[in-house]
Amino acid sequence: MSETRLAPLTAAADWPGITGADGTRWHYLDTGATAQKPQAVIDAVTRAIGVDYATVHRGVYTRSAEMTLAFEAARRKVAGLIGANEGEIVFTRGATEAINLVAQTWGLANLKAGDRVLLSTLEHHSNIVPWQLLRERTGIEIDVCPLTADGRIDLDAAERILTPAHKLVAFGHVSNVLGSVLDAPRAVALAHGVGAKILIDGCQAVPRLALDMKALDVDFYVFSGHKLYGPTGIGALYAKADILDAMPPWQGGGAMIDRVTFERTTFAPAPQRFEAGTPAIVEAIGLGVAVDYVQAIGLPAIHAHETALVRTTREALRSFNAVRLFGPEDAAGIVSFTLEGVHPHDLGTILDEEGVAIRAGHHCAQPLMDHLGVPATARASFGIYSDESDVAALVRGIERTLRIFG
Amino acid sequence: MSETRLAPLTAAADWPGITGADGTRWHYLDTGATAQKPQAVIDAVTRAIGVDYATVHRGVYTRSAEMTLAFEAARRKVAGLIGANEGEIVFTRGATEAINLVAQTWGLANLKAGDRVLLSTLEHHSNIVPWQLLRERTGIEIDVCPLTADGRIDLDAAERILTPAHKLVAFGHVSNVLGSVLDAPRAVALAHGVGAKILIDGCQAVPRLALDMKALDVDFYVFSGHKLYGPTGIGALYAKADILDAMPPWQGGGAMIDRVTFERTTFAPAPQRFEAGTPAIVEAIGLGVAVDYVQAIGLPAIHAHETALVRTTREALRSFNAVRLFGPEDAAGIVSFTLEGVHPHDLGTILDEEGVAIRAGHHCAQPLMDHLGVPATARASFGIYSDESDVAALVRGIERTLRIFG
Repeated sequence: MSETRLAPLTAAADWPGITGADGTRWHYLDTGATAQKPQAVIDAVTRAIGVDYATVHRGVYTRSAEMTLAFEAARRKVAGLIGANEGEIVFTRGATEAINLVAQTWGLANLKAGDRVLLSTLEHHSNIVPWQLLRERTGIEIDVCPLTADGRIDLDAAERILTPAHKLVAFGHVSNVLGSVLDAPRAVALAHGVGAKILIDGCQAVPRLALDMKALDVDFYVFSGHKLYGPTGIGALYAKADILDAMPPWQGGGAMIDRVTFERTTFAPAPQRFEAGTPAIVEAIGLGVAVDYVQAIGLPAIHAHETALVRTTREALRSFNAVRLFGPEDAAGIVSFTLEGVHPHDLGTILDEEGVAIRAGHHCAQPLMDHLGVPATARASFGIYSDESDVAALVRGIERTLRIFG
Repeated sequence: MSETRLAPLTAAADWPGITGADGTRWHYLDTGATAQKPQAVIDAVTRAIGVDYATVHRGVYTRSAEMTLAFEAARRKVAGLIGANEGEIVFTRGATEAINLVAQTWGLANLKAGDRVLLSTLEHHSNIVPWQLLRERTGIEIDVCPLTADGRIDLDAAERILTPAHKLVAFGHVSNVLGSVLDAPRAVALAHGVGAKILIDGCQAVPRLALDMKALDVDFYVFSGHKLYGPTGIGALYAKADILDAMPPWQGGGAMIDRVTFERTTFAPAPQRFEAGTPAIVEAIGLGVAVDYVQAIGLPAIHAHETALVRTTREALRSFNAVRLFGPEDAAGIVSFTLEGVHPHDLGTILDEEGVAIRAGHHCAQPLMDHLGVPATARASFGIYSDESDVAALVRGIERTLRIFG
């Protein structure tokens, strides 16, 4: 592992959430939960909520027109990042809302009792519970694709499970616990092979992998802004234009209508039809700047950087007999593990004293915890700003923990 | 009208969105669409997304615990502002999402074909379309309460309309077009008198009126953060604890569950049950600071200030023969008008050149426009920061417009 590959991709001064005023570094290894924000995003938010602030789409004055341009430019940037058209991007609060939107519009309109939906053992609750709520309403059946021994969605198994009764496949692109990467093109081909649509939860993939919706031919793709170095309160649903156009509205209100009378209301075309009410204006603009930032570095460089950090971490953790490692060797940006005799929460607390932030818990993936046979794992997850010093601090913290508990 | 009553309530330096770097003032009369933000809110957002940033509810490290405290403190502040308990406040993207949440959870669970919902002629689209979408699903009937001659919801008419078949009344507290204020206690009593629940859309009321949910005894109350001097992307639903507790979940995902298996998922208690996914963390914290700011000035002072500005404006506009004024004399913070022979959009454009921002259009209230017999109105709306110079600038702009079109 060359030093060059592990050098940080960005300047420490870009990350006020990590670099203290005195230059000290917080070893932030919880990027899988939420990413810290570059100064450019913070500045954009401060401007948009301050000197530039106005509403969008409805003002007849210059500043509102400018905000509208900035808001729609953000939509174009998000679309550009994933190889989509801007008309295929619906702004949501986050990935969770995006999946619920699909379940409650496309799902309610297209799925009926007896239709089958295929999920996998490693899904985040946000890609399980919306389909269970839909199951209660419609009587659909949910199947669960198992995992390979190293924690990937087993697409050979998926191929055996899928039938023409399957109308939807919904898989995570990168596991938020294991970091395992879905073979997305094959998953899409398998779903389409039986006439099913496919939704991919890209929360952990969009910040790490170069994506092209057109080439991937996926039907729905969702992600959160706050995991992509952008603000909270914003995320996106990508859906193919013809699917989106045919979807009925979900939330009613201003901005999503064409003409309202009490007798009959007609609706705006997509994506506006799905964006009722004043949108998360400042947050969308901030997300656009985050996209610029990520694209300036380049996703291949980010992915290589994080993959190298994962390898370094796994090698280092393997030297502890007490460590049990989960997930594949080539995981994207995420390493989950347990420490024999130490609850992950206790590890997290001791690491916190050392200035190292990890996540400990079920990671909103209880079925995967059940599968792994553990109530919780410790998780280190990396981002653009991560470097070898973070890994070294994690290792020192584990050593100290083992001394305390040993 | 004494000068004292019209003096601005806050320092110009508090409002970077209004006061230019050179001290020039933007005459912002579109607070009804969205409010500018005080420096305290901007600073809070900048800190929360920067040096303080972390996720909430799930981190085992100190900074996440601190963010969780700040996030939940914001919920307590919002609850305190309206005399509610924190467990009765659900954070939403805004008022629109809050109304849709009620329609799609409480509404779907409790309303059936033949049940009646009473709205009014002056409702914002966000308090019309969600009930129409529910009508399509359930077969409920929608009745429309007419207005008095001066633009209030006619509660004498409501009393005649309401029957035991009415299960819900949904009224705006302050009209976003006319500024007319609902007699909310009487509306609540009328609804409860026939056994109906009542939802009040408080978007334009919460920034202007002192409120006490317990005293009002309302069942549902909704408002947006961005109209209350807070960030975009955040708002709130108040619902009585027993009603909220009985409501089924709406969006599924992380943070709203108790235990997830593929067979069966159990849910967290309210309000968490209605907050799936990573919340709008930074936005909630910013809203909490906005609440502090508003409470430090006091809603009675704000209401008196804005009412005085409305009177001054109405008196000034009455001097133009070409002006047609809408709404009652004692309107809260909002004045709608038309200028004979001039489309409101043209007026808005000319005013913009004079540094005056008004709104021109249907204000997401097309049924009210139909009732008024106009396609659009011009609207001036006031806020904490508004002063007599804004009114004077509006009057000068109208004079210039009349010269151009005369």
